[in-house]
Amino acid sequence: MLSKDKKILIVGLGLIGGSYAQALKRQGYEVGAVTRSQDTIVYALGQGLIDRGTTVPTADFVGAYDIVVFALYPHIFLQWIADYQQFIKPGALLTDVTGVKCSVVYEVQKALRPDLEFVGAHPMAGREVYGVRNANCEIFKGANYIVTPTDSNTEEAIRVIEQLGETLGFARLSRLSPEKHDEMIGFLSQLTHCIAVALMTCKNVEHMSAYTGDSFRDLTRIAKINDEMWSELFLLNRDELLSQIDQFSGKLEELRSAIASGDTDSLRQLMRLSTERRTFFDK
Amino acid sequence: MLSKDKKILIVGLGLIGGSYAQALKRQGYEVGAVTRSQDTIVYALGQGLIDRGTTVPTADFVGAYDIVVFALYPHIFLQWIADYQQFIKPGALLTDVTGVKCSVVYEVQKALRPDLEFVGAHPMAGREVYGVRNANCEIFKGANYIVTPTDSNTEEAIRVIEQLGETLGFARLSRLSPEKHDEMIGFLSQLTHCIAVALMTCKNVEHMSAYTGDSFRDLTRIAKINDEMWSELFLLNRDELLSQIDQFSGKLEELRSAIASGDTDSLRQLMRLSTERRTFFDK
Repeated sequence: MLSKDKKILIVGLGLIGGSYAQALKRQGYEVGAVTRSQDTIVYALGQGLIDRGTTVPTADFVGAYDIVVFALYPHIFLQWIADYQQFIKPGALLTDVTGVKCSVVYEVQKALRPDLEFVGAHPMAGREVYGVRNANCEIFKGANYIVTPTDSNTEEAIRVIEQLGETLGFARLSRLSPEKHDEMIGFLSQLTHCIAVALMTCKNVEHMSAYTGDSFRDLTRIAKINDEMWSELFLLNRDELLSQIDQFSGKLEELRSAIASGDTDSLRQLMRLSTERRTFFDK
Repeated sequence: MLSKDKKILIVGLGLIGGSYAQALKRQGYEVGAVTRSQDTIVYALGQGLIDRGTTVPTADFVGAYDIVVFALYPHIFLQWIADYQQFIKPGALLTDVTGVKCSVVYEVQKALRPDLEFVGAHPMAGREVYGVRNANCEIFKGANYIVTPTDSNTEEAIRVIEQLGETLGFARLSRLSPEKHDEMIGFLSQLTHCIAVALMTCKNVEHMSAYTGDSFRDLTRIAKINDEMWSELFLLNRDELLSQIDQFSGKLEELRSAIASGDTDSLRQLMRLSTERRTFFDK
């Protein structure tokens, strides 16, 4: 059970880590933070996002927390575990916010002390801006939260991480295997970002904004992209993402052929299927 | 000059025609309509969108108007001109709302009586719903309106059609040649609809809505598509659209190669260019 006496440590106070801290503080939890810059800590203390913070992980500081949330880039997360897991309180529960799972969850679980348990989670919320100064737990409202347990997880720990998602204010919780998660995210999130980037860069369009309707704006909103984070996430889910790109490209080629040959029937059939399927995603 | 004593006829009272009528009536113009169904006329009269309407174009009815706006599918528009242009008032000014221009503007101008003048226009506003019952002139607020004159147009007539765009409430007016318009629209609007349809149909996704973030919703909003209208528009702009699809596919393939070969530098470079360009389209 997730109860208010659990102390929660956020490692990495960026947009998501900061928004976690804000939501948890509002719910009455004691929240600490380990993050790279002293500026971030000063800001987060001033805004009441955290109770304590440090840039230097120590046994005293880290060892005080029952739950540790990692909101770091994947490679930094893995390195942090290697360097500092000896400071974590015995029996503590760990979770994360990483956008890819297979290449992270199994690595962390393999590297972890046997008395610690790590349950992966992916809060499906984000913005085109980053950093703690943009933290805002309202982004969790109406959003999805996916927990990605493996065979090595206990039902009790999984429940606590699900309760964490509820506490943060997510609208819908679900469980997926790391593999299923990465397939889903490869399609729903990574492929869409690839499409947006390709659309935004395939043509010199600076002069076109006077002629732009909503459709181009919609399709390129996510073309504003954190290149450091997303390039890492893409490469950590490489095979899945390549296969999703190929599936999309194949369908676009089919549509192209129908246009090239003036095949109105095939075109309209694709559009009707598209229209029908889109209704499942109306909010 | 567009003045309040000009009587305006809308031919085709759908989403756009109905929204034109609403905006013009609110501005105090006398508005008539020719449309296919009596139901539409009854509804439009009841809502105060028009002053008079008919399903049967006659010399008496059509001949009473100074400006005629065609809000029809392209092939119906061309047929209407052939069948009924003899009813139009001598010296009247014609315009349209068609989403492609080269294949429409020159045809109409060629077929037209010498005393009539046609200036093409494209109001870049739309919704995923259609029909007069969804008419709402608020969709013009903040939107772009493109006038596409040719060498055969007079400056005076072009100005009137621009004033019409202002009167309707569009935020930004511009002039483009039909050729430049079709290139622009092939990229900004038709390519984006092709992408949305391909993305929505390339995978069985009905069960995925629980895991969907905003990006997939954004990229597929326009996947709900009027198949009759869009298939016609695609085929009327075929060569341009095919070339835009190829340009996009080429860039997506470049991105795919960078992912496949783990080329982080190229990936990040594309993402930075994408981020930089997208800022030009912030509203």
